[in-house]
Amino acid sequence: MKHLLLISTGGTISCLKDTDGSLKPALSGSALANEVPELKALCSLSVLPLFELDSTNVQPEEWVTIAEAVNQNLDRYDGIIISHGTDTMAYTAAALSFILQNVKKPVILTGSQHPITEPDSDGRKNLPDAARVAAASDFPGVYIVFDGDIIKGTAASKIDTKHNHAFQSITEPRAGCVRSDGAVVFENPIPVTSQPYTFCPKLNPNVLLLKLYPGFRPEILSSLILPGKEPIYPAVILETFGAGGIPFHNRNLLPVITSLIAADVRIYCKSMCLYGGSDLSVYEVGAEAEKAGVKNLGNITTETALAKIMWELGQKS
Amino acid sequence: MKHLLLISTGGTISCLKDTDGSLKPALSGSALANEVPELKALCSLSVLPLFELDSTNVQPEEWVTIAEAVNQNLDRYDGIIISHGTDTMAYTAAALSFILQNVKKPVILTGSQHPITEPDSDGRKNLPDAARVAAASDFPGVYIVFDGDIIKGTAASKIDTKHNHAFQSITEPRAGCVRSDGAVVFENPIPVTSQPYTFCPKLNPNVLLLKLYPGFRPEILSSLILPGKEPIYPAVILETFGAGGIPFHNRNLLPVITSLIAADVRIYCKSMCLYGGSDLSVYEVGAEAEKAGVKNLGNITTETALAKIMWELGQKS
Repeated sequence: MKHLLLISTGGTISCLKDTDGSLKPALSGSALANEVPELKALCSLSVLPLFELDSTNVQPEEWVTIAEAVNQNLDRYDGIIISHGTDTMAYTAAALSFILQNVKKPVILTGSQHPITEPDSDGRKNLPDAARVAAASDFPGVYIVFDGDIIKGTAASKIDTKHNHAFQSITEPRAGCVRSDGAVVFENPIPVTSQPYTFCPKLNPNVLLLKLYPGFRPEILSSLILPGKEPIYPAVILETFGAGGIPFHNRNLLPVITSLIAADVRIYCKSMCLYGGSDLSVYEVGAEAEKAGVKNLGNITTETALAKIMWELGQKS
Repeated sequence: MKHLLLISTGGTISCLKDTDGSLKPALSGSALANEVPELKALCSLSVLPLFELDSTNVQPEEWVTIAEAVNQNLDRYDGIIISHGTDTMAYTAAALSFILQNVKKPVILTGSQHPITEPDSDGRKNLPDAARVAAASDFPGVYIVFDGDIIKGTAASKIDTKHNHAFQSITEPRAGCVRSDGAVVFENPIPVTSQPYTFCPKLNPNVLLLKLYPGFRPEILSSLILPGKEPIYPAVILETFGAGGIPFHNRNLLPVITSLIAADVRIYCKSMCLYGGSDLSVYEVGAEAEKAGVKNLGNITTETALAKIMWELGQKS
């Protein structure tokens, strides 16, 4: 029987009702595991209660705390399960995918849309499904397991606030699924590599993410990034229109982008559309941005774009 | 035979290749109509070439220009078709839905993912489909017609930069469809009202839209909105986590939000997730935001949220 570690971090799955009726993270790993007796048949489970946060409150510092807990325990377990809130689970999964380079064991994030103490909570399926994928261990790497889907840590977005199908694999097909009979099926797994595992936890959270919209003023960029002589953010990710378009009519963003790039700020773009990604070569509104020096992130989720740039900046510092 | 007006505004449907190989809007209404001879069998079509912009460049001022062109021509036609770029079509559709209050004729936006001059362009289906819906005229109101779907002007988002199915009805089921035999079927139309048509073109584009992300700093809000004594933006829309969560741990946003609300800035929130909407009562991270005075926009697209708040501010000024 495989030996797994459940690292609990809060989230809806762990919530109890507060005095005002709102849900607040409360249960740690042991209490979660006790709610799902079938876990005992699937694996030998240890628990590590790390923190109890609504994942709205999980920030880059917590990504590193989680990554360190995984790194410190990898040798002692066959796989790791991380229970996590859904709001930023895809951000954390992306960050762990970069920090735990070529990890040789399954690192599975899961959670639920309803607290696990509710009799029909989706957590009662998601938590054992995560254990099944972690115990299968044929494909190492960081994955989200949710509502029967196995999704690569760099491909997921939360698309729904209500349905149990909260996550979708956006930039490529899902990695696999857990069938209703409990069988784990990998369809499009993370390729297994002979590259050594390396733990690279340095991040620079100093990245600005801005979504464009009709009426977005150039002054937003200048006042946030370069109010004085030195840029406040070394890198900016713009969620731009369609295939990557940046306005140059009326509220023309290109002059300020040019001046920011001249001040050594890296300006990245990705599409604000969920699917299809950006390609600056197709339209004039992309080609002009590319000429100004904007770097295209292509077909990438916002979650992965943010984690990737924070991680890349961290590696260089 | 119904008499329709095609107002052309640019977009991919009108694009030709520029000298650098990128696509630039070039064809106006007559040229578009000439590419689709079957239009002549569907309606008597007049054209009004309004402007030729990539819709990345379409901003609130253009929404008003389009609305005025519609308003000036409503009496003379049975329905209006607006050819428009896809990048911001859902924003323009939302804005027209508010400006043309209780409009009594169909106002149909369409466009394409490929220039209409390409032999297999989706514009060759979308433009006649738009004419079919406008000529059907059983259900007045502002709609997007795209890839066979009829979508309410306030319910659409562009979800894909590559596939012909670029738009999805997000906040409610699609309004209807155009079947492959050309039949127009309404399933969930805009309710017909006896309220009089009123043209309300005043907008205040002075609305800030910001998407939260892990690592979002409180100073972003203060420096953009209240760098001095008077707020620069009277209203802010935050795309918040999950069901509406706003962080109060580490980079705590609640103190600055409280001070902005005290300075008469309206702070609205909507979920950054595509589906399901926000409900601040469910989680502590929403309840605390609501206590601070954040107004929840509920189940609404970002496009409609922006147009609605710009329009509401315009009506009050």
